[in-house]
Amino acid sequence: MANIEFNALSVITCGSFSARVFVPEMDKLYLDDSGHTKKYPVLWLLHSDGEAAVDFLRTPAEALAAQYGIVIIAPDQHHALTTNMDFGPRYEEFLRRELPGICRNTFPISEDPAENWIAGVGTGGYGAVKMAMKYPEIFSKAVAINGILDMERAIGDAVAGRDPGFPLGKASLEAVFGDLDAFHGSCNDVYALAEKPQTAQFLLCWEEGLPTAAENARLAQLLKAETKVLPTGSDCGSCQKTLPAALKWLVK
Amino acid sequence: MANIEFNALSVITCGSFSARVFVPEMDKLYLDDSGHTKKYPVLWLLHSDGEAAVDFLRTPAEALAAQYGIVIIAPDQHHALTTNMDFGPRYEEFLRRELPGICRNTFPISEDPAENWIAGVGTGGYGAVKMAMKYPEIFSKAVAINGILDMERAIGDAVAGRDPGFPLGKASLEAVFGDLDAFHGSCNDVYALAEKPQTAQFLLCWEEGLPTAAENARLAQLLKAETKVLPTGSDCGSCQKTLPAALKWLVK
Amino acid sequence: MANIEFNALSVITCGSFSARVFVPEMDKLYLDDSGHTKKYPVLWLLHSDGEAAVDFLRTPAEALAAQYGIVIIAPDQHHALTTNMDFGPRYEEFLRRELPGICRNTFPISEDPAENWIAGVGTGGYGAVKMAMKYPEIFSKAVAINGILDMERAIGDAVAGRDPGFPLGKASLEAVFGDLDAFHGSCNDVYALAEKPQTAQFLLCWEEGLPTAAENARLAQLLKAETKVLPTGSDCGSCQKTLPAALKWLVK
Amino acid sequence: MANIEFNALSVITCGSFSARVFVPEMDKLYLDDSGHTKKYPVLWLLHSDGEAAVDFLRTPAEALAAQYGIVIIAPDQHHALTTNMDFGPRYEEFLRRELPGICRNTFPISEDPAENWIAGVGTGGYGAVKMAMKYPEIFSKAVAINGILDMERAIGDAVAGRDPGFPLGKASLEAVFGDLDAFHGSCNDVYALAEKPQTAQFLLCWEEGLPTAAENARLAQLLKAETKVLPTGSDCGSCQKTLPAALKWLVK
Repeated sequence: MANIEFNALSVITCGSFSARVFVPEMDKLYLDDSGHTKKYPVLWLLHSDGEAAVDFLRTPAEALAAQYGIVIIAPDQHHALTTNMDFGPRYEEFLRRELPGICRNTFPISEDPAENWIAGVGTGGYGAVKMAMKYPEIFSKAVAINGILDMERAIGDAVAGRDPGFPLGKASLEAVFGDLDAFHGSCNDVYALAEKPQTAQFLLCWEEGLPTAAENARLAQLLKAETKVLPTGSDCGSCQKTLPAALKWLVK
Repeated sequence: MANIEFNALSVITCGSFSARVFVPEMDKLYLDDSGHTKKYPVLWLLHSDGEAAVDFLRTPAEALAAQYGIVIIAPDQHHALTTNMDFGPRYEEFLRRELPGICRNTFPISEDPAENWIAGVGTGGYGAVKMAMKYPEIFSKAVAINGILDMERAIGDAVAGRDPGFPLGKASLEAVFGDLDAFHGSCNDVYALAEKPQTAQFLLCWEEGLPTAAENARLAQLLKAETKVLPTGSDCGSCQKTLPAALKWLVK
Repeated sequence: MANIEFNALSVITCGSFSARVFVPEMDKLYLDDSGHTKKYPVLWLLHSDGEAAVDFLRTPAEALAAQYGIVIIAPDQHHALTTNMDFGPRYEEFLRRELPGICRNTFPISEDPAENWIAGVGTGGYGAVKMAMKYPEIFSKAVAINGILDMERAIGDAVAGRDPGFPLGKASLEAVFGDLDAFHGSCNDVYALAEKPQTAQFLLCWEEGLPTAAENARLAQLLKAETKVLPTGSDCGSCQKTLPAALKWLVK
Repeated sequence: MANIEFNALSVITCGSFSARVFVPEMDKLYLDDSGHTKKYPVLWLLHSDGEAAVDFLRTPAEALAAQYGIVIIAPDQHHALTTNMDFGPRYEEFLRRELPGICRNTFPISEDPAENWIAGVGTGGYGAVKMAMKYPEIFSKAVAINGILDMERAIGDAVAGRDPGFPLGKASLEAVFGDLDAFHGSCNDVYALAEKPQTAQFLLCWEEGLPTAAENARLAQLLKAETKVLPTGSDCGSCQKTLPAALKWLVK
């Protein structure tokens, strides 16, 4: 097992970015592969708003990269909600183009969409599902883990002064999405996107009792996504069961 | 010498933050100090826009913390320009209240303003000078190293499509400062702030030939700040001479 | 929750050392504590041979530090087996004197033995139990998690060419313990130490089916230690249940 | 510029190891290189005894990797002195075989000896020169920066209770080299090795006034190595001039 802290420069986000990278155990077979031409399948893994890529060290990500022989890349995204922010970095663009380019140059990862998957936790699940809907030519499969998916509902909560389920208020959501009244049906509304036919495959996975369980079930129906519901508490607060379930589904 | 990577949660910036902390060598004297009540002077050190706190590992910061027996704390600030962003984190508030509170709880640092100093590189110099002008009850001395200070000029450059000297365009500057036409004379305009009497002390330090040398000289005159100009290239691109000069001035 | 990577110099081990430090969430109460005199209870946490302190990021250590309001300090110990190596660093000395001194100078931790506990995983459990037996004036409680405790048995395995349960062979064990024939009854033999009356308290905690379950049970009997056996697999390979059980016992 | 912290498992050293990796800026040209088959020249960079790979963050290593379009890999070696320790890890074996294999599998680095160079600072310079003498089929060029090269002299100092110039005493040197009386002329004595014809190329580079200047000059003469002596203090304590000089020589 190996884990990497990767700090580099991004032109699109105008500065330094950080990512955590998990690479598989170096198998003797590959060490003998004298050309070192092996390219590994890659899972792009998105943290939830208010968290950071370093938090994935608490999950079985490193062990799963080793077990399945894949690379897992978890970039920091701060409060960008996997979106080309109205005021702020064009994170969607960064994630679909610049980050893969940089990482393909630095790590031995596949460019084949069949071997490029995207997953996320909480609002990262929203980001993962959105990216695979909009860019199936890059990401062929997406998983939302304990997804916070309905940004229209979250906007309504924030505008009304209620907790949207992640630490952003109205002004911050405007910085991300621009005019909040125009959100419904926009290119950031995954329920609107889900009404068009999809070529990527989707898994929505959550713990029983998740406050956003209903919005997960609703999106799953629209997307004809697979779902997997795990017993409350089985994740020990750190994806101990959901992330393995996600990987099992992704690699099959 | 000791260096620390510190990851914690901030209520004000709604999420995780990172800082690099440099602490002095553990002197036998203090190890015998059985109460461990020693509180060290502290330098708050701000990176330039487009850079990150980790970049201070390239500078003599760790060696200087050891040499002078002080703690140096360099927080990440992404693109906040040490400002309560119009769209984004209220970084100024974070830096003057929450970060010191968290750090005073975690590290042995003094709360005495006479032992709390602030410095920054590039746009971090703008931030350092602004903080000490507005909050001299917290920061008694400030240093700008190769400062990019005149945000009105930078805004003009960005609006006209010219390079402002750091990687932010018009939209990003609006996200930080709000209405750009209202910047002149605002609470973020250090030249306007400098016209009022100041109680903190200031050093502006730069390498000869710095593109913003003139705006440094102009602010120095307004502030009656000390200045120090070092030969071109003496910093080796990593504050090898300016940061030692800053520390020498701060501790005297 | 906050996690820290701490790199500093050690005189006793003749070089740099690294530790991971987990500090409690900064409670508003303490932020208002203007003297910042709060000293937290501290758990010294030892990794197993072949692992490293960074691996504790996979465990609930950070969450537990927050939950219980304690500091957890996990130093790297490479292959020292928590021992003053015959050839190599005097790690026992480092751990009982220098590391606490350095950390008490840098972090707000208690010096009261009643608030200094030591725990370890695998061979780190051997180290934790040994330290509390030999230095109860420093560590008042010790926990071994899935402990590998019987070094005499391990030496026998290694000499016979069998796997001792951790990645050290005969020569490496000689580098740690010196003459292996003299190990029995030595100051590194916890079964010999356990025959003397103990003032510290001990918990041995393991997953059912652990290969070293019998040597745990045997030491528990000698020490009149508490034991806790959890179902196989409940730890998800990363102390998800044992470390919380350890903390619950330590703080009560 | 990009820097990487790399943690992985080593079979040969029986545990986790860490390395710092610096990779070149991602040039647009290579981002468009759709096969991502580019392999970069690689410099293996060794720290001195008592220091660690993280210390290279203080040097221009990251900037030089960007400037020259090469990868720089700095592994931690603790107190192994780049040697198959008599008691301890077989570090020489790790460095010539396992580490390159793991890194070639993980990073886009060349296997061509003409593009594999090795350098070191202090006792790392001893290691670098030794490796290139013994394994020119792997490392075609070596640089010692402020090298501490004469281990026979260092052993004499340590045995006599004098400071050998790095923080190891007699017992620690025995753990590395075994019988110290047998050191002279052994496979770890670079002066003995230097009497045989060499196929690799060597640069010895130091600051004027270095205590080991004479032993550098003596080895240079035996090896017909190039030498470069820089003014005292020009390195600012962090290879500001020597490492750029080394790179200039390596890439030409």
